[in-house]
Amino acid sequence: MSVFEFTLHATRGEARAGTLSLPHGEVPTPAFMPVGTHGAVRGLHPAEVRQAGARIILGNTYHLHLRPGEEVIRELGGLHRFAAWDRPMLTDSGGFQVFSLEGLRRIDEHGVEFVSHIDGSVRTLTPERAMEIQAALGADVAMAFDHVVPGQAPRELAEEGMERSLRWLERCVGRHRELGEQSEKSKRSERSTGQGAVSDLSDHSVLSDRLSAQTLWPIVQGGTYADLRLRSLEGTLARGDWTGIAIGGLSVGEPKPVMHRVLEELGPALPRNVPRYLMGVGFPDDLLEGIARGIDLFDCVAATRNGRHGSAWTATGKVNVRGAALRLSGEPLDPDCDCDTCRTFSRGYLRHLFMAGEMLGLRLVSIHNIRFLVRLGELARATILDGTFDTWRRDWLRRYHDKAIPA
Amino acid sequence: MSVFEFTLHATRGEARAGTLSLPHGEVPTPAFMPVGTHGAVRGLHPAEVRQAGARIILGNTYHLHLRPGEEVIRELGGLHRFAAWDRPMLTDSGGFQVFSLEGLRRIDEHGVEFVSHIDGSVRTLTPERAMEIQAALGADVAMAFDHVVPGQAPRELAEEGMERSLRWLERCVGRHRELGEQSEKSKRSERSTGQGAVSDLSDHSVLSDRLSAQTLWPIVQGGTYADLRLRSLEGTLARGDWTGIAIGGLSVGEPKPVMHRVLEELGPALPRNVPRYLMGVGFPDDLLEGIARGIDLFDCVAATRNGRHGSAWTATGKVNVRGAALRLSGEPLDPDCDCDTCRTFSRGYLRHLFMAGEMLGLRLVSIHNIRFLVRLGELARATILDGTFDTWRRDWLRRYHDKAIPA
Repeated sequence: MSVFEFTLHATRGEARAGTLSLPHGEVPTPAFMPVGTHGAVRGLHPAEVRQAGARIILGNTYHLHLRPGEEVIRELGGLHRFAAWDRPMLTDSGGFQVFSLEGLRRIDEHGVEFVSHIDGSVRTLTPERAMEIQAALGADVAMAFDHVVPGQAPRELAEEGMERSLRWLERCVGRHRELGEQSEKSKRSERSTGQGAVSDLSDHSVLSDRLSAQTLWPIVQGGTYADLRLRSLEGTLARGDWTGIAIGGLSVGEPKPVMHRVLEELGPALPRNVPRYLMGVGFPDDLLEGIARGIDLFDCVAATRNGRHGSAWTATGKVNVRGAALRLSGEPLDPDCDCDTCRTFSRGYLRHLFMAGEMLGLRLVSIHNIRFLVRLGELARATILDGTFDTWRRDWLRRYHDKAIPA
Repeated sequence: MSVFEFTLHATRGEARAGTLSLPHGEVPTPAFMPVGTHGAVRGLHPAEVRQAGARIILGNTYHLHLRPGEEVIRELGGLHRFAAWDRPMLTDSGGFQVFSLEGLRRIDEHGVEFVSHIDGSVRTLTPERAMEIQAALGADVAMAFDHVVPGQAPRELAEEGMERSLRWLERCVGRHRELGEQSEKSKRSERSTGQGAVSDLSDHSVLSDRLSAQTLWPIVQGGTYADLRLRSLEGTLARGDWTGIAIGGLSVGEPKPVMHRVLEELGPALPRNVPRYLMGVGFPDDLLEGIARGIDLFDCVAATRNGRHGSAWTATGKVNVRGAALRLSGEPLDPDCDCDTCRTFSRGYLRHLFMAGEMLGLRLVSIHNIRFLVRLGELARATILDGTFDTWRRDWLRRYHDKAIPA
């Protein structure tokens, strides 16, 4: 498979099983992507994320721009090398974070002015800057800088954000193309001067990271309004030949049936031959509902955030790891799970770690939650391929929601 | 080698290279033992502690008695199984903790009354209770319950604590013997009734943990007074045929030369054929100074505590991981180190994790510090065996203390 190619192996209704090829490896889809906020999936070693089966992770442009700064990461060989993650990676554009900020100061056609939550400095993020930062980070996939509006935004605001996102997309494309050409040029010059023909392994990996191609994915906006969503998609498709398309501005406060309706309305109009990424989603049931509506990629911080709070997903629903009922339990957290935590430790031990404030506990439950979502993607893919997806999904959701089954 | 046997392979001056055989495996000495306060070496997965080369770890009787309680741990198969650590383990007696407590209420011949720092409940620890708790935890080595006095205690107080520790040692021995006989009896009864001939693996490991023998080590006290230390040792040797001897009440505030002097005065009187454990020590230079004075085993929380605070030991001295000089450094924390942290991550990345408050950072530096001390033990052993210990130690200490070498 060539880089950035997406191969669709099978469909089952709207659900799709595919493989996405990226410079750092292949991503079988559907897939959950853990979020590496500060250049680490919260609390986890890259080897643990890998062992949990993750094939691609996210980096946060907003957080990494503020700290340590993209120049530090570029200097240290790019985000892959910095964070010791050698599989595919995607960076968001920072749009979602700055539009959610309390310190948001001004939005205009040029970009967004905001106050850093770390040192109070005033910063500006524009489509061009978002491309430059992401080029320095060097992930396989960069995301367009979009104008994000609240989940329940009135039509006028949703339309304004959607239209502006299209104009910004053009600027993103322009700057992304320039950066790509500069990188090509420096690659050729390094080759001809012999620079880069370095002797030791570590320098070699800097080089190969610097030379990796990066693709740009657009983000469809339009709030909960079907016609705006379709206009956003149409405008997006007119602006490029994309290797992937994201759907933004969902799971931001609107009721779940509304999110499902938007996905159903958008679905038939989406190109079949590129992966579809539903941003910021989700929880286990969101994954299955999204996959059933044609989504290929997901990301969400809930796996690690819930993990840090001692809330674990299991096949029979959520488990509060602090619960007194777990005190003398020698059972694994989720008997159905194959993660390191479930294969190694008892519920009683995990509860003890949380009660004692021992940080190993946060990590062990985060590992479980990540494996839980990654495995859901794996199981969905397997059942789409063997034709049993619908039954499997129905049974899975029934068991997950059935409070009658003791957890 | 039979269980609890100690084999001395070589000596170099007072320094010794040996192997201690325990129910859960062999411990090559000299060795540093990481401390697992709450049933986990702070922040670390047992697989990481193992990968750092630790052959034996400590459990804290005081902390585990209060939370989750030894009955919970016994019920869940003993501390080895609870914490998923299958190599040797030693538990302290809780003496050092209760005597250091602010909530210490009463000390008399019977034992110690103290207030739990967790729920304010009033508790009593006696030599007998310390043995019962440690039997429930089920480590390979249990420690005697001693009367600990402050490091700079006047002679009268040091003498009182030392004499009481000897009387308490007799009570420890009595209760430890009874508990061992009870365990033997229940083992025979389980065998004859077929109980314990269980089918699945997990139950089997409970059984084997329950059947493991546990040895008891005494603690020599006497403050900084040579004659008291020698009387303590004499009294100790008169009270049993020990498989190991600990030296307590050092590194508790007295100047380092005083600790060295006590070790030198005690050394010639210690039996050669059992391992010597210097409690609560140490830092890297303490390990080398102790080994040179005939010590075989060490424990200290500094490796993980410093790690959590971003302070790392390296061959050329301490490094503050938060230091601005590390910002753009692609170098490993300690170029001489073979730990996972040094093989995988740069100083710049570690600094970033600490600045961002990402808990992965605490873990990575703790792993390095533990590997650093474990490896010091390994290097000392190798140089004692090949006869180069004295030169190696001198060179090592000079390099470590030489501030002229840039860290």
